Amino acid sequence: MSLAPWRSILARALHRNRSLPYARYVQLATVRPNGKPANRTIVFRGFLNDMNQLKFVSDNRSEKPKQIEYCPWAEVCWYFPNTHEQFRIAGKLSLIDRTNPDESLQKARKLIWQELSESARTQFAWAHPGQPRAASETFSPPAPSQSDPLEQFCLLLLDPVEVDHLELRGEPQNRHQYHLEEDTWKIEEVNP
Amino acid sequence: MSLAPWRSILARALHRNRSLPYARYVQLATVRPNGKPANRTIVFRGFLNDMNQLKFVSDNRSEKPKQIEYCPWAEVCWYFPNTHEQFRIAGKLSLIDRTNPDESLQKARKLIWQELSESARTQFAWAHPGQPRAASETFSPPAPSQSDPLEQFCLLLLDPVEVDHLELRGEPQNRHQYHLEEDTWKIEEVNP
Repeated sequence: MSLAPWRSILARALHRNRSLPYARYVQLATVRPNGKPANRTIVFRGFLNDMNQLKFVSDNRSEKPKQIEYCPWAEVCWYFPNTHEQFRIAGKLSLIDRTNPDESLQKARKLIWQELSESARTQFAWAHPGQPRAASETFSPPAPSQSDPLEQFCLLLLDPVEVDHLELRGEPQNRHQYHLEEDTWKIEEVNP
Repeated sequence: MSLAPWRSILARALHRNRSLPYARYVQLATVRPNGKPANRTIVFRGFLNDMNQLKFVSDNRSEKPKQIEYCPWAEVCWYFPNTHEQFRIAGKLSLIDRTNPDESLQKARKLIWQELSESARTQFAWAHPGQPRAASETFSPPAPSQSDPLEQFCLLLLDPVEVDHLELRGEPQNRHQYHLEEDTWKIEEVNP
């Protein structure tokens, strides 16, 4: 598998929007076990081994694991305010938790933990997300180990199979769709 | 039905982020007829009759109508960069097209058309979205009537039943969930 053709386009968008920290925030849509959609903001954490899979982090106690088990398909919507462009990235999610037997993925899980800020790491030691509000002291736990991830910490990977890139600033606008077909990315120019 | 308690909180977020035009852009997640999620940026156009239903516009030729027919449930993810807060708004979508027999909704459909900018209206006269790229002259059609919507123009309404409000700037963070139960909104404070 080689670098996907949309990777350089996305890299350019990231570069041109680097003045905005929230240009690395994306919206991740999944499907709930009751068949209804879910949608939340998560932080893009780079590409796995600098290839095509997008890295995120997740807490095993959140709703995502149950949703991914029910339906591993997801669509990320990524809007870049400075350049007025949108990427819709559809693919399959993999949640790498502490029980995953793949050594290289465990290494990646550990590395991304180490790269987090201390405050981001500490959030994984907070009281159970989504449960009735706990006492305030449960949100000031001691900082967890910098080297070894807490057990609820997961690496979340998105392996894209379709990317829809819309440039609102084009004349009139430009839109390209990338589809993965048997290890080859096909590009099509479509109407916005 | 009275004004939902999250309406004033959302109004405050809109006010505090009014310097950013894209603070009115939200990500709408729906489910495709194949069961996979879809996610795209759309522009918030206010509330229907200043009550609880969110207004958007849509093109009948886009993928949304088929998705809404398959599953009317949606979740909007709305991130406000200035105030570091997120609203997740889940509810049922209604697509008001030109055949809808409800007179007051047709009036709302016409009104929102009239409130659009000329360039926004003209986009509904462009070549079929998502089809292979058409000749460039099809993207410079004459401006459509300002008073009467083109037939592919739809008003899209989201009728919320759950709102999840996360304030990342809290100490540590604040998160409130609003659920609609038999015409009454219940509020619960939960862990972030």
